Amino acid sequence: MSVVVVGTIGIDDIATPSGQVREVLGGSATYAAIASRLFAPTSLVSVVGEDFPPAHHETLLSRDINLDGLRVESGKTFRWGGRYHDDLNSRETVFVELNVVDNFEPRLPESAAAHRFIFLGNTAPTVQMGVLDQVCDECFVVTDSMDFWIEGQRRGVTDVFRRSSLVVLNDQEVRMFSGELSLTSAVAHIMHLGPRAVAVKRGEYGAALAASGAWFFAPGFPLSEVVDPTGAGDAFAGAMLGSIAEAGQPTDAALRRAIVYGSVVASYTVESFGIARLATLKRSEVDARYCMFRRLVEF
Amino acid sequence: MSVVVVGTIGIDDIATPSGQVREVLGGSATYAAIASRLFAPTSLVSVVGEDFPPAHHETLLSRDINLDGLRVESGKTFRWGGRYHDDLNSRETVFVELNVVDNFEPRLPESAAAHRFIFLGNTAPTVQMGVLDQVCDECFVVTDSMDFWIEGQRRGVTDVFRRSSLVVLNDQEVRMFSGELSLTSAVAHIMHLGPRAVAVKRGEYGAALAASGAWFFAPGFPLSEVVDPTGAGDAFAGAMLGSIAEAGQPTDAALRRAIVYGSVVASYTVESFGIARLATLKRSEVDARYCMFRRLVEF
Repeated sequence: MSVVVVGTIGIDDIATPSGQVREVLGGSATYAAIASRLFAPTSLVSVVGEDFPPAHHETLLSRDINLDGLRVESGKTFRWGGRYHDDLNSRETVFVELNVVDNFEPRLPESAAAHRFIFLGNTAPTVQMGVLDQVCDECFVVTDSMDFWIEGQRRGVTDVFRRSSLVVLNDQEVRMFSGELSLTSAVAHIMHLGPRAVAVKRGEYGAALAASGAWFFAPGFPLSEVVDPTGAGDAFAGAMLGSIAEAGQPTDAALRRAIVYGSVVASYTVESFGIARLATLKRSEVDARYCMFRRLVEF
Repeated sequence: MSVVVVGTIGIDDIATPSGQVREVLGGSATYAAIASRLFAPTSLVSVVGEDFPPAHHETLLSRDINLDGLRVESGKTFRWGGRYHDDLNSRETVFVELNVVDNFEPRLPESAAAHRFIFLGNTAPTVQMGVLDQVCDECFVVTDSMDFWIEGQRRGVTDVFRRSSLVVLNDQEVRMFSGELSLTSAVAHIMHLGPRAVAVKRGEYGAALAASGAWFFAPGFPLSEVVDPTGAGDAFAGAMLGSIAEAGQPTDAALRRAIVYGSVVASYTVESFGIARLATLKRSEVDARYCMFRRLVEF
């Protein structure tokens, strides 16, 4: 089975306590697609401007990512600049230039019609809803969002969650969306809307999954140094969905394994700036760390 | 094998978003001993004043806790008042009256000479060092501390950690003591002093164990409501040590199981105010939730 990733492609400037990089390939769809392709054939649906560097285009193509759904529009590519504070738990957005993303109306190409596993990266809920209108009823849709949309377009976010199979948010977003302090109550609130499962990203504390009335917890992989957290959440979601597509069916067992695969790929992603480590990651490395996760929780 | 718990007994006033209680039995040794007795014969070494209510004394005795090491001194019992904020992650100390604890110099009674498993509850490092001078070389000593001692008596805390078998701290304390932001670096700093293992309490995120060059992680048990977090850390440590004493040897496998038992007992403890739930906890209930922990991390 194969995956369609819908989201942004951008050019990022990133500063962390470990250093800084400029004009690197970024965006939610980039991280998610490069993670997903480790597990399943992956198509990317996004938009870039005429200034999009051929080298970045080549980076995606050389990872065997299908770019039939990548539109090049007149104007500039989405750009983002971020700076992380010392503890890496908070960051400030230095600049955002939406550029061609501002009018992004994703169209799934013909070649994506057979895809049953869809990732709706973090974009405006109206954009996500436009994609939901194009996918099959039996498609498995993983949806991401963020505080900005939850605060400003709560109704739209709610409508998108209602039609999603799996909602993936971080700790704070789950609590913000639900208005509940307790994680169990917060997740119950979202599950009540209809999704089959909710995945909660908890940074260094790992990830949690609520599905079929049961919880599953994966720890964060213990790293001595985190170089750059950018894109970890998107890599997590992409690897998660890729592994579900590889399994073929979103069974409870496949969802649990997907949370661990997501955690593994996210843990590699933060070891270098941007996509540097993610883009060179081999499946054998993923599987080796997956086995280490088993040992981390064995008793 | 049996356990000796050394620490404070107090009379607590507690206010949380769920309500408040006054003059309830508290103190680090109380929680740790009542937790430990679920797994192994437990003796308590502490001090109370002449005002210590017979009902509180009876509460400890009726849990089969050996009180040969409990001294009653002229003066008042230690008293503590605390108030938790809405998210339960922060609390303010409303009052502390050290009273008889101010001159506490614990003496292990004859009957405790055969004990090989010692819990040094959170007290001044000089007090902890006085106990270490009384225990056998082959004793397994679990030591707790807190930000107050780490800030004010770092050298004393360091000396106590050097002679401890297992150091148990929370997330913030590990980082504060080591000056390291990364958990792996922070724990390596403490291990370098000599302890066999370090256990890190992470609140709702569970607990971590570093031992024999490997990590182990247990999730926090998902509760829909936390009524009162008071004593959860001491109950965790007491259950942990009790289960190691029950196993007989602190093998790596026994340490991992101990972290889970500690998490189980802590998760029950926070369901009611003070020791209310902990004091009525049955071993069968502990074992039932222990099995649920396995399912929480199974993949």
